[in-house]
Amino acid sequence: MKFCSSCGSSEITLKIPEGDNRPRFVCSACGEIFYHNPKIVAGCIAEWQDKILMCKRAIEPRHGKWTLPAGFMENQETMHEAAARETHEEATAEVANLSLYTMYNLPHINQVYVMFRGDLVEGKASPGIESLEVSLMTENDIPWDEIAFPVIQETLELYFEDKRNNSNFELRYGDMLRLSGKKFEVKRY
Amino acid sequence: MKFCSSCGSSEITLKIPEGDNRPRFVCSACGEIFYHNPKIVAGCIAEWQDKILMCKRAIEPRHGKWTLPAGFMENQETMHEAAARETHEEATAEVANLSLYTMYNLPHINQVYVMFRGDLVEGKASPGIESLEVSLMTENDIPWDEIAFPVIQETLELYFEDKRNNSNFELRYGDMLRLSGKKFEVKRY
Repeated sequence: MKFCSSCGSSEITLKIPEGDNRPRFVCSACGEIFYHNPKIVAGCIAEWQDKILMCKRAIEPRHGKWTLPAGFMENQETMHEAAARETHEEATAEVANLSLYTMYNLPHINQVYVMFRGDLVEGKASPGIESLEVSLMTENDIPWDEIAFPVIQETLELYFEDKRNNSNFELRYGDMLRLSGKKFEVKRY
Repeated sequence: MKFCSSCGSSEITLKIPEGDNRPRFVCSACGEIFYHNPKIVAGCIAEWQDKILMCKRAIEPRHGKWTLPAGFMENQETMHEAAARETHEEATAEVANLSLYTMYNLPHINQVYVMFRGDLVEGKASPGIESLEVSLMTENDIPWDEIAFPVIQETLELYFEDKRNNSNFELRYGDMLRLSGKKFEVKRY
């Protein structure tokens, strides 16, 4: 942040405003304070018979890697609407009967991932503009070494474990904390 | 948004960027696109014996009304850390053993409310700078006509219903949709 979006001044400094307890971007000219907060990424596991919908990314980061459809929640929508919209954008697919499945804090990148489970309507999907390819996969089909993001890997592992155990896919809530490089610690509550 | 925070230009227009599907603030001078996304408000029901911690607001909006401690989640923290921090800021209180309790989409104000339930350590609390007063209350003590926000009222009603039913306080997920004026529709999933 180099300029104030309210008054156009370049006198932006990082300082702790009066009555606050952490540094913010503050405009010394007009006094405006700029807050930055975590974003929600919403997505889903879309089920069709014994398979789920996977997408091969056509965009960075992780171009060419596989993921579940997911993306940033937008203003004026709900988390399940965001998950359904992302599934439509990435895989031209409709989903129904969404239920909450995993929710992870990713404090190192200021994100909260919220993943739902739902029905892939009529089993139909085709690549949207952000996907090179889409595919309906069983557990054995999943390209485990080619998964785009650790939080997606974690969600897939939980899902197939629940499926093997005939469990009721209860909500998992936790943190994924980056230790170093590609190592993560998962804490569940 | 009147000026570009990257280059300082005043040529900010609201338009749909190429490859996107909704209007964004875009700088015509440098091309920077500015995204605005929903914020998470995290808070908690802090329990001590048969009572819970309530706070009387010393700030707007709803100065003088009662609420559960809650506030905007910050970067680099988790949702339960945010809930604990807000409880400390508003009521100088420590909470332990937090578990997820309610989660509501409020699309009309671009917020997601995430409320936890936890133990108020040693039953200790006193007003923080954002509170006029704090109080440990039973269901009969709650000033139902003086609650600051509908989503807090909803959470309190669920909590006391669960408590009367000796239920296990299972997670409730849903939407609170503004109909008109002070009327809301609650949808649960």
